[in-house]
Amino acid sequence: MRQLKQQRAVETREAILHAAAAVFDELGYAGASINRILERSGTTAGALYFHFGSKETLARAVMQAQSETIVPLLTSEGLQRLVDITMIWSHQLQTSTLLRAGVRLTTEQSAFGMEDAARPYEEWATIMQECLVTAETRGELQAGVDPRELAELVVETCTGMQLFAAAATGRADLPQRAVRMWKLLLPGVAVPAIAIRVKIDPERGRAAVYGTLPEASPTA
Amino acid sequence: MRQLKQQRAVETREAILHAAAAVFDELGYAGASINRILERSGTTAGALYFHFGSKETLARAVMQAQSETIVPLLTSEGLQRLVDITMIWSHQLQTSTLLRAGVRLTTEQSAFGMEDAARPYEEWATIMQECLVTAETRGELQAGVDPRELAELVVETCTGMQLFAAAATGRADLPQRAVRMWKLLLPGVAVPAIAIRVKIDPERGRAAVYGTLPEASPTA
Repeated sequence: MRQLKQQRAVETREAILHAAAAVFDELGYAGASINRILERSGTTAGALYFHFGSKETLARAVMQAQSETIVPLLTSEGLQRLVDITMIWSHQLQTSTLLRAGVRLTTEQSAFGMEDAARPYEEWATIMQECLVTAETRGELQAGVDPRELAELVVETCTGMQLFAAAATGRADLPQRAVRMWKLLLPGVAVPAIAIRVKIDPERGRAAVYGTLPEASPTA
Repeated sequence: MRQLKQQRAVETREAILHAAAAVFDELGYAGASINRILERSGTTAGALYFHFGSKETLARAVMQAQSETIVPLLTSEGLQRLVDITMIWSHQLQTSTLLRAGVRLTTEQSAFGMEDAARPYEEWATIMQECLVTAETRGELQAGVDPRELAELVVETCTGMQLFAAAATGRADLPQRAVRMWKLLLPGVAVPAIAIRVKIDPERGRAAVYGTLPEASPTA
């Protein structure tokens, strides 16, 4: 009985989170209202405030859920893992409301003056840095390439390419932009053997989402 | 007499443009009102509508003025010119309200559904592409590096680094982020002789603004 109650609570929280994501994705932070999120989720105001407390807490939870739409799908290591993150991300941005809302809120939040506005960027940078620390250990990086610096650069480039792609093509060409980033960036940061062998293929993004991505981590 | 009238019209237009930039910079597109822009500019509603027609036209003019805060200050050519654009840009973003407002509107406009939302990105990409076409002619680029592709990547990275820097440090570390971009990007896109000789120095941004930038275009 208690377990059933807990499971229901988890489901309610998820329903509210996804409803909020849909409303934030469509209307942005300023345009989204608690009422509209309630309408969409079919839950009560009591449940919403119990789980999230405020619109800002809800926005934070949506921003923090970004990596959950990607990290569990990864099967590779090192530089290939980092490339795969960007491939899955550029695919998921076209299909996952949760990820799209998180990205929209991240770029909007400085404007609406949220505290700790750098946090979603920092969290992505830390996830990417971990891939690059492994890449460094495996001898995949050129000498002098700092994992944290490169991780922050990739976060910056992804942030900007997402905005450019959204404005230019409604994000349809985002996977191609991610491929282009690696084509131009890899030769300067990866050792030649790895730069050639890392798979930069938008299909990897799609394959990961549908669970058909083979293990593929070239070693130096 | 007619000349005086024309000069006054130019001055009025400039006053409105700068007042609008200050208000957009502070409040964003949604938050800015024509009334507040009028208050700040000290001009009449008639003058504003004569020169700009609407808030959207005014926002477009502010976005288009971005490059005017940078391009006239350039003295170098090829890759050095592109690096200098980013150095001046990262310096000016901390001091020029006009540039800051243009950048803010550019990242916000997809959200408020402006038509032709990719245009400010495309315009920057074209300015950068021109530097890179010259760089290619001068033998500064590695084989296979496409000037348009690299130009769009630099626009994307600058867009994202500006947002990350704004959230993390109120843009104080933006020049350092621009240096980092070139440090990681140049080895993969420039021929070695140029990668070493291009000056990546935030002081060049400051020097250009104060008119003390020496001519400096290394050749291959």
